Amino acid sequence: MYSLGELAAKLNLEFSGEADCPVTGVASLVSAGPGDLSFLSNKKYLALLEGTRAAAVIVHPEFAGQCPVGCLISETPYLSYARVSHLFNNTPADVPGVHPSAVVSPDADVHSTAVIGPHTVIEGGALVGADAVIGAGVYLGHDSRIGAGTRIYPNAVIYHNVHIGEQCVIHSQAVLGADGFGFAPGPDGWEKICQLGGVRVGDRVEIGACSTVDRGALDHTVIEDGVIIDNLVQIAHNCRIGKNTAMAGCSGLAGSTTIGADCTLSGGVGVVGHVEICDNVHVTGMTMVTKSISEPGSYSSGTPMSSTRDWKRNAVRFSQLESIHKRLASIEKKRGK
Amino acid sequence: MYSLGELAAKLNLEFSGEADCPVTGVASLVSAGPGDLSFLSNKKYLALLEGTRAAAVIVHPEFAGQCPVGCLISETPYLSYARVSHLFNNTPADVPGVHPSAVVSPDADVHSTAVIGPHTVIEGGALVGADAVIGAGVYLGHDSRIGAGTRIYPNAVIYHNVHIGEQCVIHSQAVLGADGFGFAPGPDGWEKICQLGGVRVGDRVEIGACSTVDRGALDHTVIEDGVIIDNLVQIAHNCRIGKNTAMAGCSGLAGSTTIGADCTLSGGVGVVGHVEICDNVHVTGMTMVTKSISEPGSYSSGTPMSSTRDWKRNAVRFSQLESIHKRLASIEKKRGK
Amino acid sequence: MYSLGELAAKLNLEFSGEADCPVTGVASLVSAGPGDLSFLSNKKYLALLEGTRAAAVIVHPEFAGQCPVGCLISETPYLSYARVSHLFNNTPADVPGVHPSAVVSPDADVHSTAVIGPHTVIEGGALVGADAVIGAGVYLGHDSRIGAGTRIYPNAVIYHNVHIGEQCVIHSQAVLGADGFGFAPGPDGWEKICQLGGVRVGDRVEIGACSTVDRGALDHTVIEDGVIIDNLVQIAHNCRIGKNTAMAGCSGLAGSTTIGADCTLSGGVGVVGHVEICDNVHVTGMTMVTKSISEPGSYSSGTPMSSTRDWKRNAVRFSQLESIHKRLASIEKKRGK
Repeated sequence: MYSLGELAAKLNLEFSGEADCPVTGVASLVSAGPGDLSFLSNKKYLALLEGTRAAAVIVHPEFAGQCPVGCLISETPYLSYARVSHLFNNTPADVPGVHPSAVVSPDADVHSTAVIGPHTVIEGGALVGADAVIGAGVYLGHDSRIGAGTRIYPNAVIYHNVHIGEQCVIHSQAVLGADGFGFAPGPDGWEKICQLGGVRVGDRVEIGACSTVDRGALDHTVIEDGVIIDNLVQIAHNCRIGKNTAMAGCSGLAGSTTIGADCTLSGGVGVVGHVEICDNVHVTGMTMVTKSISEPGSYSSGTPMSSTRDWKRNAVRFSQLESIHKRLASIEKKRGK
Repeated sequence: MYSLGELAAKLNLEFSGEADCPVTGVASLVSAGPGDLSFLSNKKYLALLEGTRAAAVIVHPEFAGQCPVGCLISETPYLSYARVSHLFNNTPADVPGVHPSAVVSPDADVHSTAVIGPHTVIEGGALVGADAVIGAGVYLGHDSRIGAGTRIYPNAVIYHNVHIGEQCVIHSQAVLGADGFGFAPGPDGWEKICQLGGVRVGDRVEIGACSTVDRGALDHTVIEDGVIIDNLVQIAHNCRIGKNTAMAGCSGLAGSTTIGADCTLSGGVGVVGHVEICDNVHVTGMTMVTKSISEPGSYSSGTPMSSTRDWKRNAVRFSQLESIHKRLASIEKKRGK
Repeated sequence: MYSLGELAAKLNLEFSGEADCPVTGVASLVSAGPGDLSFLSNKKYLALLEGTRAAAVIVHPEFAGQCPVGCLISETPYLSYARVSHLFNNTPADVPGVHPSAVVSPDADVHSTAVIGPHTVIEGGALVGADAVIGAGVYLGHDSRIGAGTRIYPNAVIYHNVHIGEQCVIHSQAVLGADGFGFAPGPDGWEKICQLGGVRVGDRVEIGACSTVDRGALDHTVIEDGVIIDNLVQIAHNCRIGKNTAMAGCSGLAGSTTIGADCTLSGGVGVVGHVEICDNVHVTGMTMVTKSISEPGSYSSGTPMSSTRDWKRNAVRFSQLESIHKRLASIEKKRGK
């Protein structure tokens, strides 16, 4: 529990209202009750401000006058909400130390302040930094490294020679360092190419549940600082993802593709292999990126949703587009345009 | 093994044929052999009835006369097959009790009839109901609850504050309660928003292998009674899925989206965030749902498959559709329509 | 470390250059340094050959004359690279035997040369062949079989009655044998159909991280010899995948679909249920396969990516295609074509 004045001081914000007003939680404008702090980050929800039962609201200076309760005044209310959310973190505390059921190689180097959960396996040559938390049932392969303050949630798997930086979060069932999908056609079928590279992940990277980052074929697969990756995302071998880029759920990159910095790939986006996307590119949901992009901006593919009945009619015509074009050209020609 | 008469009694169906005809298994019309019970649930396969080697077939009254072997007569043959399938369940029996290698917090409340598999971890405050089965290597976080009769398959992960109802099935590698993908843009990159909500799952819900249901940012993510979710499905934070809705493999919902009751989302469907879909909506495979749907019915997007050669020609014309429209409009104008 | 002459002998290739030139690793033409062997498998990169710092390069006879360093001469340089990669395998060696923390049923049959990792669970009736490697935290269900030389990476889950052949690789978090998505509509919602079949996987099959292969409803789900499956791929119940077919990341098959031999499905491809695809079919990325394919060849669907601004205009016109067609037909009619 904090008072409104304490929160203002911690966030370095001005406030209006009673300094000793108690704040016990965070909630949306709609569901906030007494004791809750809320936030208004989008003008669209301005109408909700009037009726809120929150104890206080984080608002832009522009709307401070309209706030019927206490407020924290911020130029960036959403960012202030992000910061305040950590003060009310309800994640259970970790039990310090190495659980006796963990199997830690004597050749591993685990910092004395690191937490190692039950049934976790840490192989020889692995390194776990200060204050790192390795949850239950995690596998950490030979010569892999987990930086200071990084958290690995239960049952995630880190193969050998995967380096993860500091202050990262890796969610459950994520797999870093599985073999890239490399095979050569041989006389009797596919012949596997041994994947000799590793994975290098920078600092402050988050990787979602059930996401996969393959090891490189020869060089490493690289994820730079500040990248955020949602659930069920596939990063193939030898990709490189630039600083602070975000990839939403169910998106995927084929092999050897490079994504620049500060890009956003929405849900379900697929990118073919061996292309380069420059910085500041934004790709809308379920787009198929089939070539390199060298101009910042927003890109899309796909067709709009409609009733299945209408869609079927239009979809048939899609298959006739070349002929529609020719019929049109023929008319234009005859008319002398 | 059952006799035909016993099956008829158990399913409360009429039958024709010899009551003591032995039935030892279930099989499709094509592969059924002596001793097998089969079913005809689709007129399309009527021709297969004549040649079946099954001991008996579940048929609609309409086709009972054409059945060359014994039959169970049902108004809903597919449903009767579903029910009879459980009589031939070949899933190995569970070993009762808590396996000695499991790490169960003394502050957890595990019912005496529950099964806890080897290497499973159950944290403090967690609750496991009567006859629940928690497979090997599962992680069950603090204050999470597993209802009576629910089965969690090996290596699934349930974070803290996730409540799962009764008679649910959660398959291996599913993750419930990982952090929602919530970040605010800050001066030096993305700043994580602490995900303070949990997950609430109703009764008789099935969640497939490698599917992910994120915890809420503030309020809970909610899955209502009777929802069925296939493999590799992504449910983002603060979604709500209505009663008896079905989501097929590789489909996904972005954050804060609400799906009504009795909907079906086919494989690979994606739904953007913050939209509402009403009850009784059916979305065909790989459709991109980009807006709310307020009318029940069937919805689609995408283009039909063709040979790559034809597709390339038509796809180029897709990129010229605006100009095709203008060319057409120009002709129409000149002709006075 | 090998000498160039030794490598030539091992690969049964001719070479030019000094036989005792030491080769200590494999690298791409661009990043190769002294001691590295590289390869030129695509004419497109011919210009890189001149400047390479590699000790030697695997080249087609056509380009041997242009190689400024030593070379191994191969009609199939990429295949030769695949084979040579295994000579430089840097995967850590396995610790032989059964780890004391593994829980192996006395009714399981584990070959004396097999490796069983820490915390792995092997149920009764399971069979593990010679030289098989079952990594840490794996679950192997009742009556399942792992063939000789097959490797299962940590935390993968194999349900009961799943047979995997010889020399296969199953990556972490893969799930074989989870229930197919089979439910019948009943009076109060979905009723589960007990999935009575198993999974049969041939020899030399690779299955990627977080991929799922469901057990059959009645008959088995079948994956034939030499099939390669990437990460996050969904194979529904009762599918059959023919010999040497490749499925790239994030692709998926709905139930009872048959794919022929020597097919390739690119990333994100989805195939509806109950269709048949013949041998030698190649499907481009993110294509939706909605019907059977009986002619070998390449198939596609989708629309090309463009700027979101252009895309929006064209996408609106897609929804008017039926009317565009009619407007065109009307003009044609009036003009007597």
